[in-house]
Amino acid sequence: MTKAELIAQIKRKESFLCVGLDPDLSKIPAHLLQTADPLFEFCKEIIDATHPYAVAFKPNTAFFECHGAAGWESLRKTIAYIPKDCLVIADAKRGDIGNTSAYYAKTFFEHMDADALTVAPYMGSDSVLPFLQFDNKWVILLALTSNEGAKDFQFLEADGKALFEQVLLRSSEWGSPEQLMYVVGATRAEDIARVRALAPDYFFLVPGVGAQGGDLDTVVRYGANEECGLLVNSSRAIIYASSGQDFAAAAKKEALKMQAQMALHVQRFKF
Amino acid sequence: MTKAELIAQIKRKESFLCVGLDPDLSKIPAHLLQTADPLFEFCKEIIDATHPYAVAFKPNTAFFECHGAAGWESLRKTIAYIPKDCLVIADAKRGDIGNTSAYYAKTFFEHMDADALTVAPYMGSDSVLPFLQFDNKWVILLALTSNEGAKDFQFLEADGKALFEQVLLRSSEWGSPEQLMYVVGATRAEDIARVRALAPDYFFLVPGVGAQGGDLDTVVRYGANEECGLLVNSSRAIIYASSGQDFAAAAKKEALKMQAQMALHVQRFKF
Repeated sequence: MTKAELIAQIKRKESFLCVGLDPDLSKIPAHLLQTADPLFEFCKEIIDATHPYAVAFKPNTAFFECHGAAGWESLRKTIAYIPKDCLVIADAKRGDIGNTSAYYAKTFFEHMDADALTVAPYMGSDSVLPFLQFDNKWVILLALTSNEGAKDFQFLEADGKALFEQVLLRSSEWGSPEQLMYVVGATRAEDIARVRALAPDYFFLVPGVGAQGGDLDTVVRYGANEECGLLVNSSRAIIYASSGQDFAAAAKKEALKMQAQMALHVQRFKF
Repeated sequence: MTKAELIAQIKRKESFLCVGLDPDLSKIPAHLLQTADPLFEFCKEIIDATHPYAVAFKPNTAFFECHGAAGWESLRKTIAYIPKDCLVIADAKRGDIGNTSAYYAKTFFEHMDADALTVAPYMGSDSVLPFLQFDNKWVILLALTSNEGAKDFQFLEADGKALFEQVLLRSSEWGSPEQLMYVVGATRAEDIARVRALAPDYFFLVPGVGAQGGDLDTVVRYGANEECGLLVNSSRAIIYASSGQDFAAAAKKEALKMQAQMALHVQRFKF
């Protein structure tokens, strides 16, 4: 999916919602546990219920991997099931030396046909560049994450810039806004503004709205650009809105609530 | 495997060799491609041929993942096949927010029964701590990597210390030398010495000897401690020593050559 196609979907759906798929057998409704593939069945019903209100889905590979080969097959089926008008983000946080990164890229962009992959920046340019060699595929690089531990290294100051700013400055030379996005946590408004100042034209994938305490209006005020430039992720607040038979209907209601709030912003973007 | 058990194996085998398992279908001998599970067959023969000379094996998850669910099953079988006197390092470079890292830990420490997992530090303490909650399991945290891109961020100076030194200083508060090791590239002697100065009692997993240009004697001179404190990895130089029917015999010869060089050092360690 190109940037223009993504923006077209944001306009059409009046939404920049990304639904995070973190299927946890200890949380999904009990009646699904008897099916042949509970991880896939859960994700399938969530996708069916929420895709009219979302422009992206983000399966988190950890929740599939922990079931071994069967879990990987559930992940493949889930990615294949996501409608083509939605961006598929494999949230895998990979990154290794060049020839290894090239294999991770094949895994997610060829074997799985995801549109985007989250990548960790610690190992530098040659660990990221192999992921940028694919047409119409996206790297979403960790810049500023939403967890407490983000403070340990991401805010260390080097040459007058925090590490997350150094990551933005250097990596923006590796990939254009047509192929590279950044993970930018929603936890502090002033930090989102710092990231936007350094990367005016890039899309941000924003976790931390909802369960982790971030606020949508604040994210938009400090993080949006004229093309929207945001994908705001919600996982738990949507997919675990109910643990009963009505989980898909409850997820739909939560997704619709977020989409309605987003629509007010989309109508004001200048695109 | 405990640190004492690992050291006992180093003494017994007079080796601190780790064999990296990066099974690449474009490089493994043609006659294996007709078997039902070429990835596993290749690794099995390499393990059979080299385990007397190695104290650790390091399957690289990327080379298995790129074959989907079947590749994951080959990885599981490979890990299960490695003899119990060898440390099994899943080279996966995972790391995410706390609840996700907990699932990655389950994947590799429970589903797969690896002894150790490589982890990326960018997201900080709460992304690493979930991996440290398992008895007799190891986190091997990226500190200083052996690739060119290591220069992009790992050498940025913050508060008078390079980022890789900040990673060592902070993370050594999260885990003891009984449960935490570091990835320390073999590319520059003076850098290995800087890492050893900050982490005197920790084991280092050292890639970059051989194909990437590092030298064993230099690594030992600057990186060893009194308990050895090193696992030196070799992947390509051993596993692709021959691409013919004799690949396992050729791998054995290369592993023996490294072990013989290591034995001279082991005899001098004060343990």
